Amino acid sequence: MQDFIYYVPTRILFGRTSEEEIGPQSLRLGGKVLLHYGEGSIKQSGLYDRTAASLKTSGVDFIELGGVKPNPRLSLVQEGIQLCRDEGASGILAVGGGSAIDSAKAIAAGVPYEGDVWDFYIGKAQVKEALPVGVVLTIPAAGSEASPATVITNEATTEKYGLLSDHLRPVFAVLNPERTFTLPPYQTACGAADIMAHVMERYFTNEPHVAFSDRMCEALLKTMIEQTPRVIENPEDYDARAEIMWAGTIAHNDLLGRGRIEDWSSHDIEHELSAFYDVAHGAGLAVIFPAWMQFIYQEKLPKFLQFAQRVWDIPYTAGEEERCALEGIRKLKEFFSSIGLPVTIRELGITERNFAQMAGKAVRGSTLGSFRKLTKADVAAIYELAE
Amino acid sequence: MQDFIYYVPTRILFGRTSEEEIGPQSLRLGGKVLLHYGEGSIKQSGLYDRTAASLKTSGVDFIELGGVKPNPRLSLVQEGIQLCRDEGASGILAVGGGSAIDSAKAIAAGVPYEGDVWDFYIGKAQVKEALPVGVVLTIPAAGSEASPATVITNEATTEKYGLLSDHLRPVFAVLNPERTFTLPPYQTACGAADIMAHVMERYFTNEPHVAFSDRMCEALLKTMIEQTPRVIENPEDYDARAEIMWAGTIAHNDLLGRGRIEDWSSHDIEHELSAFYDVAHGAGLAVIFPAWMQFIYQEKLPKFLQFAQRVWDIPYTAGEEERCALEGIRKLKEFFSSIGLPVTIRELGITERNFAQMAGKAVRGSTLGSFRKLTKADVAAIYELAE
Repeated sequence: MQDFIYYVPTRILFGRTSEEEIGPQSLRLGGKVLLHYGEGSIKQSGLYDRTAASLKTSGVDFIELGGVKPNPRLSLVQEGIQLCRDEGASGILAVGGGSAIDSAKAIAAGVPYEGDVWDFYIGKAQVKEALPVGVVLTIPAAGSEASPATVITNEATTEKYGLLSDHLRPVFAVLNPERTFTLPPYQTACGAADIMAHVMERYFTNEPHVAFSDRMCEALLKTMIEQTPRVIENPEDYDARAEIMWAGTIAHNDLLGRGRIEDWSSHDIEHELSAFYDVAHGAGLAVIFPAWMQFIYQEKLPKFLQFAQRVWDIPYTAGEEERCALEGIRKLKEFFSSIGLPVTIRELGITERNFAQMAGKAVRGSTLGSFRKLTKADVAAIYELAE
Repeated sequence: MQDFIYYVPTRILFGRTSEEEIGPQSLRLGGKVLLHYGEGSIKQSGLYDRTAASLKTSGVDFIELGGVKPNPRLSLVQEGIQLCRDEGASGILAVGGGSAIDSAKAIAAGVPYEGDVWDFYIGKAQVKEALPVGVVLTIPAAGSEASPATVITNEATTEKYGLLSDHLRPVFAVLNPERTFTLPPYQTACGAADIMAHVMERYFTNEPHVAFSDRMCEALLKTMIEQTPRVIENPEDYDARAEIMWAGTIAHNDLLGRGRIEDWSSHDIEHELSAFYDVAHGAGLAVIFPAWMQFIYQEKLPKFLQFAQRVWDIPYTAGEEERCALEGIRKLKEFFSSIGLPVTIRELGITERNFAQMAGKAVRGSTLGSFRKLTKADVAAIYELAE
């Protein structure tokens, strides 16, 4: 096991009554809050009104900026930074899914920084301080509500890059599973794929001594496999929605990655799909992850065998390791299909073949991942396998 | 799933290099720290010297109070409170296992309180503030390093009571698995039983919608079942020691109890054994937990069946639910025996029969637990089953 630090101070307020805490918790964001959200669904659902009312009841002054799109854009982040500076905002309350939260984190990092916030994403500068961020979560997927991560797309350069900083971990997150009742099946499934991918990016590691966290990863994957079909079938199944929402937070709050070397190749490979074609991140992952597995499994049989046995209950047969491992990968792909996700690039509706260019952008002149290091040629081959 | 708040801000520093952080982290305990520890093993092991050196290097001024015994005593707590007041201590650094940490928490709560610190334990007062506590952990067992709990024994009244307060959650905890190499097999096994009991007290719940946390509980139990025999066999197996140490923290940092109603009967029933006979807490749990299970399993077959199947890999046979459930309980008992623990009150060396009196103290004029509420007569019957 690798040495590690585990520090996740985000206060999670979970359940049907959790929204009562929006105002009181937002007092921790300082005297003036930027309410940051997406394209209006929170107005239709009434969440905007409840949030505004709770802020007012607690005496929290706020300004607002909506319009965050999936794969959140740098241009809106820059607008938010300017707005916060002009209005003297002291903190940001993101209401929405991962896109609203990631955009809020980018604004939070950018306000006290003199240069261009994109510097943080291209590794030109490190985040040294940030405004505090609070969250009212509506989509279980990105895990951004308790993570130090933010991913932003620069439309001008079609680059989509991530950034990690403990300064960007939200101070609180309100999670009411009822808010996810209205998520359409496709978006629900995309979220499930993202959550499972966050676990698998950690699960597939070369660190051999990760017995406990392996088992926790398997616990989370099995939970998603059981619960996701229930909410596709019945979107208002509170308990299944709650399992998924809580699993989504744990999948990406660092717990499952402690003591391990994480991988993240599939996320990086998918990011180019999203950046080039603006596909939903979870759908892209459902396409890329099985292809990545198919590309590398022969070199990593023991771990894929464990995945097949423990996550998919495929019995081990001596001498048939490869068949068992492949069966696990096939089951994953079949599961993604069964919840309505595409599992090939064609099914994403993409017919162009920019694989070499995308692979080049994904590896950024280096290699990807650690479980199996991937060159530009490897990444292009994975796009081809996913085709 | 029940509504919940999850807030665990303890910073965990884990691994071979973690002790370098003792001094720097202790700066967060204020200008003058009480170093609080047990009966001298940290002096023999060199940990005392390393801790003192790290504090000095970071410029942290400290005073000290050793002598904490297993089942930590109220009298030493009161001595510590007086010492902190006399010397103006601003925080406490506990070096040791659960006893040193629980004692440190009691002192931390007592210093700013005008009344008798025992008031908190008997429910006469609530903790409103406390000195900050840091931890250097040497025994994985109590989980006190990231929990809000402290258990203290009042020698004058032979009462052993627990207290929960978020004010008592340590601000940091240094966990170096190498420090556990010298734990004797019996103490190692007692710690394992305590860790497993912390999970089982949460696992056995009447809340039906706990799919994810059930699976995480099972992941932790399976980890303990696999790893404990390894460290009994080879006390210097770093990786197995690391799995157990990390599992011990997660078992009791609240993660596994969110969304559930916890039980805690077995702990309360065991506390009377420890209070009356000063037996090791983990050994007492190895005796009481299987007896509690035997007493109630017929009323709660589905959960005991799941326990048998998922934790002990006992195949389910239709129509043989009771046999399967009993087999799971038998396996647990057999496991405790296999790692050298007593599984009966006789094996604890106790030949007296104060069961009615102990049962009376355990229920404190009310009932115990929630999974199956236990009356005084039930508790006495469990002591008899454990005999």
